[in-house]
Amino acid sequence: MSVAVSPLAPKSYPEMPSLRGVRMATAAAGIKYKNRTDVLMMVFDKPASVAGVFTKSKCPSAPVDFCRANLAHGVARAVVVNSGNANAFTGAKGKQATTLTAQSAAAAVGCGENEVYLASTGVIGEPLDATKFAGVLGQMHSDATGDFWKQAAEAIMTTDTYPKVATRTADIGGVKVTINGIAKGAGMIAPDMATMLSFVVTDADIAPEALQALLSAGVGPTFNSVTVDSDTSTSDTLMLFATGAAAADGQARVEKGDDARLASFREALNDLLKDLALQVVRDGEGARKMVEVTVTGAENDAAAKKIALSIANSPLVKTAVAGEDANWGRVVMAVGKSGEMADRDLLAIWFGNVRVAVNGERDPAYSEAETTAVMKLEDIAVKVDIGLGNGTATVWTCDLTKEYVAINGDYRS
Amino acid sequence: MSVAVSPLAPKSYPEMPSLRGVRMATAAAGIKYKNRTDVLMMVFDKPASVAGVFTKSKCPSAPVDFCRANLAHGVARAVVVNSGNANAFTGAKGKQATTLTAQSAAAAVGCGENEVYLASTGVIGEPLDATKFAGVLGQMHSDATGDFWKQAAEAIMTTDTYPKVATRTADIGGVKVTINGIAKGAGMIAPDMATMLSFVVTDADIAPEALQALLSAGVGPTFNSVTVDSDTSTSDTLMLFATGAAAADGQARVEKGDDARLASFREALNDLLKDLALQVVRDGEGARKMVEVTVTGAENDAAAKKIALSIANSPLVKTAVAGEDANWGRVVMAVGKSGEMADRDLLAIWFGNVRVAVNGERDPAYSEAETTAVMKLEDIAVKVDIGLGNGTATVWTCDLTKEYVAINGDYRS
Repeated sequence: MSVAVSPLAPKSYPEMPSLRGVRMATAAAGIKYKNRTDVLMMVFDKPASVAGVFTKSKCPSAPVDFCRANLAHGVARAVVVNSGNANAFTGAKGKQATTLTAQSAAAAVGCGENEVYLASTGVIGEPLDATKFAGVLGQMHSDATGDFWKQAAEAIMTTDTYPKVATRTADIGGVKVTINGIAKGAGMIAPDMATMLSFVVTDADIAPEALQALLSAGVGPTFNSVTVDSDTSTSDTLMLFATGAAAADGQARVEKGDDARLASFREALNDLLKDLALQVVRDGEGARKMVEVTVTGAENDAAAKKIALSIANSPLVKTAVAGEDANWGRVVMAVGKSGEMADRDLLAIWFGNVRVAVNGERDPAYSEAETTAVMKLEDIAVKVDIGLGNGTATVWTCDLTKEYVAINGDYRS
Repeated sequence: MSVAVSPLAPKSYPEMPSLRGVRMATAAAGIKYKNRTDVLMMVFDKPASVAGVFTKSKCPSAPVDFCRANLAHGVARAVVVNSGNANAFTGAKGKQATTLTAQSAAAAVGCGENEVYLASTGVIGEPLDATKFAGVLGQMHSDATGDFWKQAAEAIMTTDTYPKVATRTADIGGVKVTINGIAKGAGMIAPDMATMLSFVVTDADIAPEALQALLSAGVGPTFNSVTVDSDTSTSDTLMLFATGAAAADGQARVEKGDDARLASFREALNDLLKDLALQVVRDGEGARKMVEVTVTGAENDAAAKKIALSIANSPLVKTAVAGEDANWGRVVMAVGKSGEMADRDLLAIWFGNVRVAVNGERDPAYSEAETTAVMKLEDIAVKVDIGLGNGTATVWTCDLTKEYVAINGDYRS
C-alpha cells in the first residue's frame, strides 16, 4: 500500500482555534492498526444541537442506523468515531457493538444513549469488537481538551495520506462565531455520499431544525459534488453540531433555517464544507491530479450535474488525465452516455483555457502543444458547454492511476 | 501499451466455414496503424436482409447515424469497416467521410448507397480521411473471398489482443443453415452497448423484420450484459445479415420473428452472440480475470440486472478481484449503491461455491483459505441472493488492473 503523502496535499495546515463547548481526545485501541490512534471522542460540555446527512446506500452500516435513529432527539453530548473497522454488514453483532459503545460513552459522559453519535470507517463485514472502547472512553472523557483538531482528524484516517481540517468564522447578529471541521476519505467516494466521515462543530447557538436545513442545503454543491471512484460507501456520515457557547457573548439563538441572520454563517459553512470536500478529493486514492468538471448550457441544473458526474466518473476520462492526454473524445463519450439531452454538433469543450472542440468537431485552432501544457498541470479544469439551455454544475474528481489499483487490490490483506 | 495476448484468450479458434453469399477482403490503408490491415469490406452477392442495434449514446459517431438511416431500406450489398479512427465527433467532416466512403463502396459493388453499411472504430475526434478508402475498395471487391473470417476479425481490432470469431449451425424447416460472426472490443465496453463492433452473417433466408426481431431480443442477455469499464462508446454497432443462400437448398423464407421454424436458429444465434460478447470481456483492456456476476432474489429481473451491473462496474470490486482479495464487503457496498430494493440482513453472497456471507453478516463457516483459493482462479463467479423476490440476472465483466490504466493513459499518443 502506498504510504507517501498525496502530491495534492495542502502545502500548509490552518491554525485550528479552540472552539468553546467541545473537547476531544483520541486513543489507540488497536482495532486494526498498530502504533497509531484509531478512536476519537468528542464531548460537548452542554447539550449541543445536532444535524446529519448520511449515505443513501440501501445497506448502511450499523452506526448509520444508530445515528439516524438518534437524530430525531436533536441533542448531542458525545461522539465516538473509530477507524479500522466500518461495523458494516455485521448483522446482529453490528447492532450489539453500537449499543455497547453508546452505553460506554453515555456512562463516561453522564448522558443518555440517545445523545451519543457513532461512526466507524474501515473494513466492511468484520465484526467490530466494541469491548475495546469500553476500556478507553472513561479516560478519554477525562483527558479531552479543546485544542485537538488535527489529532482528531488523524485518528479517523484510513487510506488518507493527510489529515483534513478547516476553520471559518462568521457573524450572527453582530456576534462572531467559529466553525471547525474535520473529514476523512479517501476511496469509495461518490456523491450521496462517500466513505467519507466529517464532523463540523460551531459555537453558534442554532436550533437543530435550523442546523439541519443549513446542512442539507450545503451538502449539494460540496460533499455531494465530489467523486473519486463512483463507489458509494455504507458509512458516509456528515454531522454538524452547534454548542451554543456564543450565547454567552449575546448571540440570540436562531430557531429557523431561513432566518436572515444566518447569511454570513451559511456562506462560511458552505465554504468550509467545500474546503473539506475538496481536501477529500485531493487525497483520492492514488490521485496525482485534481480535476474540476464544469458543465454549462445543459437542459437544467440537474442535467448538468448528471453530465458532469458522467465525465468525472468515467474511467477512460480519468485514465487519460493520469496519462496527461488531452483526450477530449472521451469527454464527448461521457456526455453521450449520461442519458441527458445533448446535441453532438453543438458541444464545445475546454481543457483549462484552451478550447479543444467546438460545433461538434475539433477546434480549427486546436494546438496539441498548448493543450498538452494544460494536461501537465496538477489542477485541471474541464469545461463542457452543451449549448442547449441554462443548466450549470461543477463537480470535482481526481485521476485514475495505477496506484489506485494497487491500493485497492491490496487493502484488506 | 501492452501487446501481449490476454491470458483469458481462447485456447484455440474454431474452424470458420465459408458462408454462402458473402465474401470479404481486407486492406492496409494506413489510417492510423502501420504494417497491419485496417479496412474490412464485406460484399453480398445478392441483396441481403439486414438488422442492427447501435449505441444509445446521445453523441453517436457519423457511421452510426449513417447506418441507422439506411436500416429502414432493409437490404445490404456491402459493409465497410475501418479501425484506427472512429469518425466520431467529427462534425460536418464526419458526414462527408461517410458519404464519400459509401459512394466509393457503391461504385465498386454496383449498388445503391443506401445498401452500404459503415462502421469505424478507434480514436474519437480526429477527422477520418475517407480518400484512403476510395483507392482500395474497388480492388477489395475484386479480391473478396469466402474463407476470410479470422482475417476480417483481425482487420477491425484496436486494443484487442486477439481476433474474435464464432460459428454455429441451425435448422430451419429441415434445412441446415450456418451463422458466422466476428467482433472487436476491448475498452469503452458497457451495456447499451460498447466500443464494440460485431458483424454476424447467416446464409438463412430471413426477412429484415424477422431478423431485427431476433437481434433485438438476443442482445439483452448477451452484448447488453457485458461491461468492461462502464463507459459507453459513440460507435457501438452490432449488425446481422442474412444472405438467403439457403433458399437454394429449399429453405422457405421466414417473414416473421415469431415464426415457430426459428426456434433452432434463435437458440444458435443467441449462443453465438453470447460467445462473441464473452470473448470481448475476456479481452477487456488489462483483464487478468473473468468475473460472472449472478443476482437472484431481487424484486424483479430489471432490478437484478441493475444490481449485477452495479457490482460488475464497481472499481472497488474489480480491483479487489485483481488483487485476488475476497472482499465481499465491497459487494455489499455495490448492492447498496444500486438504488434497488435490498435488505442488508437478508443478503447472502458466494464466491465460486463458497458462501462467504449470510443473513447480513459473514458466514459463520467462513474460511479465508477456501475463499482465497477461489480468488486465485482465472474465472470467478460472484453470486448474490437478495432474498426478496424472484428477479434474476447474470452479467459478465473483468478485473481492473494496472494494465487497464497503462493502456488507457497512453492510448492516443
